[in-house]
Amino acid sequence: MLANLKQFLIGKPLKSEEIHHEKYSVFRGLPILSSDAISSVAYAGEEILWVLIPVIGILSYKYLFYVALAIVMLLCILVFSYRQTIDSYPNGGGSYKVSKENLGTTWALIAGSSLTIDYILTVAVSASAGTAAITSAFPKALTHKVIITMLIIIIMGIGNLRGISESSKLFSLPTYLFIAVSVIMIVYGIIKFYILGYTPTQVQAIPEATGNITILLILRAFAGGCTALTGVEAISDGVPNFKEPAQKNAKVVLFFLTLIIMIIFGGISYLATLYKAVPTLDKTVVSQITEQVFGKGIMFYIMQIATTFILIMAANTAFSDLPLLLSFIAKDGYAPRQFLTRGDRLSYSNGIIVLSFAAIFLTVLFKGETHFLLPLYAVGVFISFTLSQTGMVGKWIKSRKAGWRHKAFINGVGALVTLITAIIIGYTKFLHGAWVVFFLIPLIVHLMKNVRKHYDEIAEQLSMENQDLPKFNERKLKHFIVPVGGLNKSVLKTLNYAKCLSDDIVAFHVSVDDEESEKLKRKWEKYNIAVPLVIKKSPYREIKKPLMKYIFSEEYPSSPGDVVTIVMPQFVVSAWWGNILHNQTALILKNTLLREQNIAVITVPYIIKSQKKS
Amino acid sequence: MLANLKQFLIGKPLKSEEIHHEKYSVFRGLPILSSDAISSVAYAGEEILWVLIPVIGILSYKYLFYVALAIVMLLCILVFSYRQTIDSYPNGGGSYKVSKENLGTTWALIAGSSLTIDYILTVAVSASAGTAAITSAFPKALTHKVIITMLIIIIMGIGNLRGISESSKLFSLPTYLFIAVSVIMIVYGIIKFYILGYTPTQVQAIPEATGNITILLILRAFAGGCTALTGVEAISDGVPNFKEPAQKNAKVVLFFLTLIIMIIFGGISYLATLYKAVPTLDKTVVSQITEQVFGKGIMFYIMQIATTFILIMAANTAFSDLPLLLSFIAKDGYAPRQFLTRGDRLSYSNGIIVLSFAAIFLTVLFKGETHFLLPLYAVGVFISFTLSQTGMVGKWIKSRKAGWRHKAFINGVGALVTLITAIIIGYTKFLHGAWVVFFLIPLIVHLMKNVRKHYDEIAEQLSMENQDLPKFNERKLKHFIVPVGGLNKSVLKTLNYAKCLSDDIVAFHVSVDDEESEKLKRKWEKYNIAVPLVIKKSPYREIKKPLMKYIFSEEYPSSPGDVVTIVMPQFVVSAWWGNILHNQTALILKNTLLREQNIAVITVPYIIKSQKKS
Repeated sequence: MLANLKQFLIGKPLKSEEIHHEKYSVFRGLPILSSDAISSVAYAGEEILWVLIPVIGILSYKYLFYVALAIVMLLCILVFSYRQTIDSYPNGGGSYKVSKENLGTTWALIAGSSLTIDYILTVAVSASAGTAAITSAFPKALTHKVIITMLIIIIMGIGNLRGISESSKLFSLPTYLFIAVSVIMIVYGIIKFYILGYTPTQVQAIPEATGNITILLILRAFAGGCTALTGVEAISDGVPNFKEPAQKNAKVVLFFLTLIIMIIFGGISYLATLYKAVPTLDKTVVSQITEQVFGKGIMFYIMQIATTFILIMAANTAFSDLPLLLSFIAKDGYAPRQFLTRGDRLSYSNGIIVLSFAAIFLTVLFKGETHFLLPLYAVGVFISFTLSQTGMVGKWIKSRKAGWRHKAFINGVGALVTLITAIIIGYTKFLHGAWVVFFLIPLIVHLMKNVRKHYDEIAEQLSMENQDLPKFNERKLKHFIVPVGGLNKSVLKTLNYAKCLSDDIVAFHVSVDDEESEKLKRKWEKYNIAVPLVIKKSPYREIKKPLMKYIFSEEYPSSPGDVVTIVMPQFVVSAWWGNILHNQTALILKNTLLREQNIAVITVPYIIKSQKKS
Repeated sequence: MLANLKQFLIGKPLKSEEIHHEKYSVFRGLPILSSDAISSVAYAGEEILWVLIPVIGILSYKYLFYVALAIVMLLCILVFSYRQTIDSYPNGGGSYKVSKENLGTTWALIAGSSLTIDYILTVAVSASAGTAAITSAFPKALTHKVIITMLIIIIMGIGNLRGISESSKLFSLPTYLFIAVSVIMIVYGIIKFYILGYTPTQVQAIPEATGNITILLILRAFAGGCTALTGVEAISDGVPNFKEPAQKNAKVVLFFLTLIIMIIFGGISYLATLYKAVPTLDKTVVSQITEQVFGKGIMFYIMQIATTFILIMAANTAFSDLPLLLSFIAKDGYAPRQFLTRGDRLSYSNGIIVLSFAAIFLTVLFKGETHFLLPLYAVGVFISFTLSQTGMVGKWIKSRKAGWRHKAFINGVGALVTLITAIIIGYTKFLHGAWVVFFLIPLIVHLMKNVRKHYDEIAEQLSMENQDLPKFNERKLKHFIVPVGGLNKSVLKTLNYAKCLSDDIVAFHVSVDDEESEKLKRKWEKYNIAVPLVIKKSPYREIKKPLMKYIFSEEYPSSPGDVVTIVMPQFVVSAWWGNILHNQTALILKNTLLREQNIAVITVPYIIKSQKKS
């Protein structure tokens, strides 16, 4: 029943060889690898205004422009840095990989855990922002915000378990649509204001200024806007997915990505200045601008829908990247091995499931409010930027190939700038939630190291190198004990089975009721069972303790270190509800016995055929 | 860890022989066996007013008296009937038992399921009413009504798992306190009104009459008040718990119980008439009267606390009776066997746990509102009254002992009157919720019969009578297969173990990665493992299917019907979180293999020692 539901939701299993990596052209690669970065403009400008407006009121729009400019400059520095990463890592250079190779394990784990946190936040933030785009168009849906966001995450989770990335052709459309509509809006918005002489109607009153412009305020605004740069690293991770010449194509995409972000982020920020949008929890800044520029007509709805879809695509990036990252970490032994298993549809299902639950948890915790989630966001990204660039610097210094100084300088500038940005973000957002990230990163790194330690310990204990290999002599293995509750065909089958394997068999009965035990004794004699029956009282109605006591007693003919085999009858009812109706004594006993070193457990099933319904 | 928590909550395990049944004197038995019945006066009068007041306004107080009188008469009839049950069943005559002996299984199951539903309702109703007594005194607690009720249920559940009934000495106090305070209140209330000439202040306005008095209205009021009679049967169930002469003592308690209900129920109904209490959801009728009679002083709070405690005791009755009833039904095979198991503290823990959850579910569903729960209540009780009395009539007719006509007549009247009452309650409350009960009873009876059928089927298939007993010849049992994922000490231990038991061993490896399989082959040769290694590809990354396919293939030397033994290496990590870090492949494989008739499974554990923390 459950298996059917699973198949209905995620589709038929695929063969291992059916895995195939599609190669992207520039045209196809751009929307897939840049949706995360491009989509962040849907909330980045708004974040800057959230910081400025309550303090300096109408003056904000002037500073919005400067802050946006600073962020675009930061983007350019990043692009130069990442071009070098693309050149050096034709097989993909994610932060984890670059840090591991050049900085060592601990830094790699810091990068890995920063990214893990950020990918989870990407899903929560993008799904919430996608919902915000919907509710800005349809305010009636506002009360169901959290549910809508959760549904988006669940659908994406299921889609990715099915292996949605295969069908990503569909996904190009909304990105190009979003780019096109945004550019039209920017151009038309400027024309409408300057040439048609439209005077914006003030939807939301701009609050009075309550303070002065300070460095800290500008830094906070800058930190808020930096969310626009999340996702830029995706292209350098995805180099091997490009058609040949892969590195060149990747760099072309990186160039276009930069251009698009500059135009849209700059343009929308500029429109916000012209049309005086004021951030509120209920209506996004972008939707306020769109409504003013296009009126509440067809274009408004197209823009909102395109925004929703590009945000969903951005979340989808995390769904394909985080499980891959976790599988890398798991391969190195720092994460549970389950992250390496491919599911029925060849996706890393466990990573997808963990990501879905974590993102849903965050959504519920933060009530589906993008603005509350964002303080946690971006710190992780910039930490991983810094580590990746620093790793590149280390790489150049070590290599000392031609032009290494020049290249190290470029990555060094990248590392320094992203480090400063990380510090700014961390400092200004610390009390608003970034402290959680600074608390979680060392915790996760610590856990990851312990996981590795655990695997190492086990590998060492199981290893066959340089150790005495275990040997058993035959005699020691032939102690068989069959625990019996009563005497029936299942027990008989088990006794017969045991007799074929050993001559040293004892049937062991734990008595909780003298009368029952007496009955069993008589039945044992009646059927002339050729196995001795040992009966022990159990005042606490337990089975394992009396059994263990018996095994270690004088009475039982085993020497210390002997292996004792417990042969358990177990009848299996085919109906799924069958097990509810039976005491799970056998099952529980089996599981606790397996914790003993010198006990092997045999289960002899007896299948109960389900009969026709009356 | 979990085991420690369990022991902290419910105490150390007790030995089976530590079970002991305390025998009650009349003085001790009265509070324990009658708290359910006596406590219902806390809400029965209120229920009558809920029906009358909205329709006939101030006239209600006149009819309240008549309805209460009818209920007291019904009580007297019941008492005569139950005296005869006490005489006939010195070992306790619950409805289930009496119906089973005299009417047959189906009727017994109807009685059993009615009682089950009603016991669950008793807990939910009494806990809610107990909370209502608290919130009437401390209105600030009103917002936490549901939580308080749930806490009461959880504490009672845990208390009963500990075996609280032993300490029931404590419980006598609140019942006697409640009786004493109630009687004082009634006497003083009458004096205050008639002799001191107190004019009641109208706290709540009495609504205007909106209709006329009709038969249906009276019947509905009667049905509401009948909740006062729930719990009367407890004494006849509990006869064996009395000191000798048990039957006589039981009858004395029954007499006192009747007297107390007559006085308190009649008295409080009369006070309600004098002081014109109006039922509301926020303040109980009893608390309104208490406040008028005593003022909001110490006596008021004592009365509220006594009410809360007697209601908790009433709920506790269900906690001792329902698990016992379920154990009877389970003994007859109509309920899951787990209800027969005594827990660490010798209580029927599973019944207690099921009861707690069901009552909490009802509390949440009905928002902890006694008034909403009551329509479901009482129907079940009167159905079981009817069946029990009808059973007694059957018993007399069959016995034809001296005076059987007279005795059959008394029980016949009892049966008829309770039947009519059940019909009245069912009819008048049908749409208000009683339909649920009429829907549930046949459903539960059906389920119970299916449970029995299931047990019968299994017993038949396992029975050793009149059937060919299974025999195995040695050859058939010696097919051993060891599934291996790799080669390590755990696998080696397993292979050595298997070699001691059989010569026909194959190691079976499922290949999902050619390279890994090649490595395994080389390692196999390097260590010179004397067991042949079979490698099969699994395109869908499964293990069971290729294994089963191999067993049934030409390649494998077994004949149909042969038993094949799968020997599984399993390493066991002692830390509780250890298993999270390992693919549970072995465990899952084991569980699915056990569904095959001719496969036995041996698990050979390899214990990983947990090393010191670094």
